[in-house]
Amino acid sequence: MMVRDNHNILDCTIRDGGLVNNWDFSVQFVRDLYDGLSQAGVEYMEIGYKNSPKLLKGADSGPWRFLNEDFLKEVITKKTDTKLSALVDIGRVDENDILPREQSLLDLIRVACYIKDVDKGLELVQKFHDYGYETSINIMALSHVMENELAEAFEEINKSPVDVVYIVDSYGSMNYKDIEYLVAKFQRLLPDKQLGMHMHNNLQLAFANTIMGADKGVKFLDSSVYGMGRGAGNCPTELLISYLKNPKYELRPVLDLLERHMIDMREKWEWGYVIPYMISGILNDHPRAAMALRSSPDKDKFVEFYDKLTSPEVMPAKRHDD
Amino acid sequence: MMVRDNHNILDCTIRDGGLVNNWDFSVQFVRDLYDGLSQAGVEYMEIGYKNSPKLLKGADSGPWRFLNEDFLKEVITKKTDTKLSALVDIGRVDENDILPREQSLLDLIRVACYIKDVDKGLELVQKFHDYGYETSINIMALSHVMENELAEAFEEINKSPVDVVYIVDSYGSMNYKDIEYLVAKFQRLLPDKQLGMHMHNNLQLAFANTIMGADKGVKFLDSSVYGMGRGAGNCPTELLISYLKNPKYELRPVLDLLERHMIDMREKWEWGYVIPYMISGILNDHPRAAMALRSSPDKDKFVEFYDKLTSPEVMPAKRHDD
Repeated sequence: MMVRDNHNILDCTIRDGGLVNNWDFSVQFVRDLYDGLSQAGVEYMEIGYKNSPKLLKGADSGPWRFLNEDFLKEVITKKTDTKLSALVDIGRVDENDILPREQSLLDLIRVACYIKDVDKGLELVQKFHDYGYETSINIMALSHVMENELAEAFEEINKSPVDVVYIVDSYGSMNYKDIEYLVAKFQRLLPDKQLGMHMHNNLQLAFANTIMGADKGVKFLDSSVYGMGRGAGNCPTELLISYLKNPKYELRPVLDLLERHMIDMREKWEWGYVIPYMISGILNDHPRAAMALRSSPDKDKFVEFYDKLTSPEVMPAKRHDD
Repeated sequence: MMVRDNHNILDCTIRDGGLVNNWDFSVQFVRDLYDGLSQAGVEYMEIGYKNSPKLLKGADSGPWRFLNEDFLKEVITKKTDTKLSALVDIGRVDENDILPREQSLLDLIRVACYIKDVDKGLELVQKFHDYGYETSINIMALSHVMENELAEAFEEINKSPVDVVYIVDSYGSMNYKDIEYLVAKFQRLLPDKQLGMHMHNNLQLAFANTIMGADKGVKFLDSSVYGMGRGAGNCPTELLISYLKNPKYELRPVLDLLERHMIDMREKWEWGYVIPYMISGILNDHPRAAMALRSSPDKDKFVEFYDKLTSPEVMPAKRHDD
């Protein structure tokens, strides 16, 4: 059997899944996940956000939203070959919280930002890089970015030491043609950077888009177990492991995680192919309105929701609140 | 907005969905579905199987498994632009049950067969064609067919009046590379036939594969509302309608069907992305074993199921009972 190009699977069950359950994951679950992903051969596990509780409301959130190194060292007592990553949002991270890499359990720090804040994102990247971390910049909401904005951002990125540049389908609206187009463009304009992709599953295309990107040379592939993630969720780790023929990957430990944990979690919390998320994917819209609907008594009033989002009074305002 | 090539969506909610609920659909639901699909602009609705109750056990099945023309005329009192189709299996259809098209509500009769029975399938096609119907031949389990078998079958198909030749991913194991390969091959070797595709969603790829095929020139696209169909189900009609930019298609009537009927149905019956079906998709295996598991108390014992299907004692026997 052909061995494929080496990819890095980055499982973001805790970080992105936390957006579903307010990071209400037990220490035992996170340990089981780390063990299972390690056995499965997954290269990275994103163990949460490293935003600062001082800069963001969320006192009721679980600890994975505001990762603390002392706490982390109690959770992960033995590092495996699976590296750990954390995500930060610009404006929400206190740089004084970040330790030099040799004192940290984290290996990779990823900076998420919208296109207008790429400069600020790259400043953070520079600091994390100087601390010894691997770094990525994740440009969100790419489907709302105009070409000229992207070209300017790329100029800055090329001057930065950032290791990985992510294509992020924040609204789950992309299909294989968008991936072909964006991957080719990123490869042409960022020749010295590795690429990553983070897809959402609103249109049941997260896995399809991810394997298309992987085959075209994208190296960092985000996924989560059972696709757990905000709204429609992500590319499922179990599918990605099965597709990438690298003999180091093992499906069985992920099936064990699914069996022991994820079925119960999905009973308790909702994510995945749910019609209002499908509608926001089709409309290339932030899932915010769909999430609000799903928390309301009208959660299955699909037609009314669709009419509201597509009425002329609503459409022009849509883009303001990305 | 670009108008795409004309495709034909064939919704098989009743026929394939009946494999989930033993065709336990009310007349009212079937009427609502026909109205909704008509308003949505869907070209074909497959209203069931036209197998014979004399040739197949199933006395407890709903009427959509053994379509009867008198009954059908009570159900569909007014034809719209949406044509009606029925599927037959070779060896299970009594040709005496088939009326000439002008006396029937059906427009298209599709013949499903395995590769070894293509000759028998084409004999049936010839009869239905002579009765005035549009016809298709649906070669099942293509992922288990060898090249030489396929080449022989194509020679026969080219001599037949069959209108449409279907690529059927019975085991839900195909990805976009298989689709690219098969569509190119079918187009090259069947230059005078229209192509169709019927995908299963074991790997969350039914929609992705279908749009890939559609963009490459496949004309008949099978789908079902909310993906309802055996095991992992099908390409969702609502996604296909949203992707194909033909202005005749309307999503809203399908959302109405989803809201009024499909959420309740999915509570009652299971289909979709369920891990044992994912496993059978990965293993390119008939969903039979997964369906049996899901009907048992062990339904969530994924690891045990995976171990059983991948143990050396089981693998060699697998292919006998397609």
